[in-house]
Amino acid sequence: MLQQSGSLSACRRCLPAIAATAFVSGLLGGCDSVDDSASDSPPEYTGSAMRIEKQGAFAIGGRVLGDPATSSLHCDHGVVEYQIPAEPRAVNLLMWHSASAVAWQSRWDGGDGFQSIFVYRGFPVYVWDGPRVGRANWGCVATDYAPAEGRDQANFTAWRFGTTYPNWFEGVQFPKDDPWAWNQAMRARYQEFDTIENAQLESDAAAVLADEIGPTVALTNSAGGLRALLTAMKSDKIVAIVAYENVGYVYPQGEGPGTPPGPFGPIEVPLEEFQKLTRIPMQMVWGDNTDKSDRYRPTVEESRRFVELVNAHGGKAELLMLPDEGLTGNTHIPFADLNNVSVADLLSEFLNKNGLDAPAHAP
Amino acid sequence: MLQQSGSLSACRRCLPAIAATAFVSGLLGGCDSVDDSASDSPPEYTGSAMRIEKQGAFAIGGRVLGDPATSSLHCDHGVVEYQIPAEPRAVNLLMWHSASAVAWQSRWDGGDGFQSIFVYRGFPVYVWDGPRVGRANWGCVATDYAPAEGRDQANFTAWRFGTTYPNWFEGVQFPKDDPWAWNQAMRARYQEFDTIENAQLESDAAAVLADEIGPTVALTNSAGGLRALLTAMKSDKIVAIVAYENVGYVYPQGEGPGTPPGPFGPIEVPLEEFQKLTRIPMQMVWGDNTDKSDRYRPTVEESRRFVELVNAHGGKAELLMLPDEGLTGNTHIPFADLNNVSVADLLSEFLNKNGLDAPAHAP
Repeated sequence: MLQQSGSLSACRRCLPAIAATAFVSGLLGGCDSVDDSASDSPPEYTGSAMRIEKQGAFAIGGRVLGDPATSSLHCDHGVVEYQIPAEPRAVNLLMWHSASAVAWQSRWDGGDGFQSIFVYRGFPVYVWDGPRVGRANWGCVATDYAPAEGRDQANFTAWRFGTTYPNWFEGVQFPKDDPWAWNQAMRARYQEFDTIENAQLESDAAAVLADEIGPTVALTNSAGGLRALLTAMKSDKIVAIVAYENVGYVYPQGEGPGTPPGPFGPIEVPLEEFQKLTRIPMQMVWGDNTDKSDRYRPTVEESRRFVELVNAHGGKAELLMLPDEGLTGNTHIPFADLNNVSVADLLSEFLNKNGLDAPAHAP
Repeated sequence: MLQQSGSLSACRRCLPAIAATAFVSGLLGGCDSVDDSASDSPPEYTGSAMRIEKQGAFAIGGRVLGDPATSSLHCDHGVVEYQIPAEPRAVNLLMWHSASAVAWQSRWDGGDGFQSIFVYRGFPVYVWDGPRVGRANWGCVATDYAPAEGRDQANFTAWRFGTTYPNWFEGVQFPKDDPWAWNQAMRARYQEFDTIENAQLESDAAAVLADEIGPTVALTNSAGGLRALLTAMKSDKIVAIVAYENVGYVYPQGEGPGTPPGPFGPIEVPLEEFQKLTRIPMQMVWGDNTDKSDRYRPTVEESRRFVELVNAHGGKAELLMLPDEGLTGNTHIPFADLNNVSVADLLSEFLNKNGLDAPAHAP
């Protein structure tokens, strides 16, 4: 059965620039754990608008099949788009989705996404499509796609809007009565490849990216987390990881959970490789209602064990349960939730306490 | 044979903001066909940086397969990302690629792409992935992809870098000795579907987009041109088309070239449908060396006949051969060529003479 999607709400892009407001009232005003007297005070802006010094997109990494002299194919690269604000901070943010770049670019209701919020807060921001995904779907191997009815309902539970469709969690940070937002969320997917091979392929390209652009904090969602862990072992330019609801982990050989590798790992690596993960701060972030989900209860426990293991090896990992910080109702994609500015404030706090928000140039 | 791609040049993103310079020296200074005393003078900027009032991304159009109450799939939407500058002009620019959105976002050498140039010039800019393409590859039907060695060499001739690989046209507007640029160009592709069915599907979604965002000038490349012509017959919010090297055309029934439909048309439509194309200004733009290409010589002739046919039916179409305007060496993707600022200046001129660059709000 084919149906036209319902009529869309009027001009959602005309919503006020929430990032601008949040920057003043949230970060500088309301979030007293941020020291606003520090020398890394944000750049001054001349109005409510973001000032972009330079932006664009490029491909990075990948391989060349065949003979470039006669018959070849450039493939298996990633594609990144970037924005460098005026008076930027020194460290880049790399936004690594698991379903769609759109989730980093706009909130479901049309409000500012993390891309805009953090450009506004002065960070160079890179939004990433890994090899074979989205704008990088020009791979070195054949792939195929098949539509699957039921994905909408699978999203509902996988993204923890509720335990069973269509029963929303009480107080969920999703505008559940807004048809525009529901339509956006259900279309915020494109083909991904959840295999260990693809995780290695994507992290190969992302490591080339980090080496190119310099010190970078990887922000990830879901299966992106495993990929960032692999990338941090391949490039020392990954200087921190903040993983929103990471579902895949890396362990030293013999120290993993012993379960067979699935689409999201686990991956065991030599201890000296794993040790590379202990030199950078990492934060594993989880939303609300994980205890009500048979799917996520064990994943959060694995996340907790991973954090303990990293720290037992001398690392700087932490588990951040958003409800412990007073944020309730968050889903599997907290940076696109209604309270994403509060989630962003916690990220600003993490970046500040780890010295990752200094300006690129001395004032 | 697999090869790692060569080492990449250092930080290309650090190139100076060319759009800023061009706006002063090119548009206001050097291009005397633009009346800079007009009331639609560009917004004032407080520095060299672009000021963005609002940006984000969203899905639009598409269908829902199955039963939304129990088992469904949202699919066949397009995905657009947008930027609204501070003090915007009233009419949107929709950038519709045929190979990759990246070609609109950055020049091959890392300089500013049309996205940045025209945001800087005050236009709301929308960059589009049509249904099943790029970030919209979540279709309602199965699709597949197969890598093909030889695509690099096919790009070389299809994009008119030269008639035979690797023999560059003399004076070509491509930085042919820059490995970064070559690498970027060869990776600036992702899966597209050159069929009449897909052209209809993409234009269905784009028409919903235009109806949502309001008056819009469609800027297209190659096969995107056919799609924009179809869109303009489906939404009266398409108020002009500037087609860079359009390879597919629409004709009134019985007035087409009589050739069987291929991947890019021709498509014949009832005369009253075709008449919708006569109410908007259209410019068909061609680069250099078309006369040296067996592939493009007949296509330019078809483009010329189309323009004459539209005007014979009362329309406002024109053919713009860039060499006639003093621009030489342009390729099939002139907006990503080295002289893209000069190409942009001609677009600014077209928009100005057709009254399409007025400010959104009275000064």
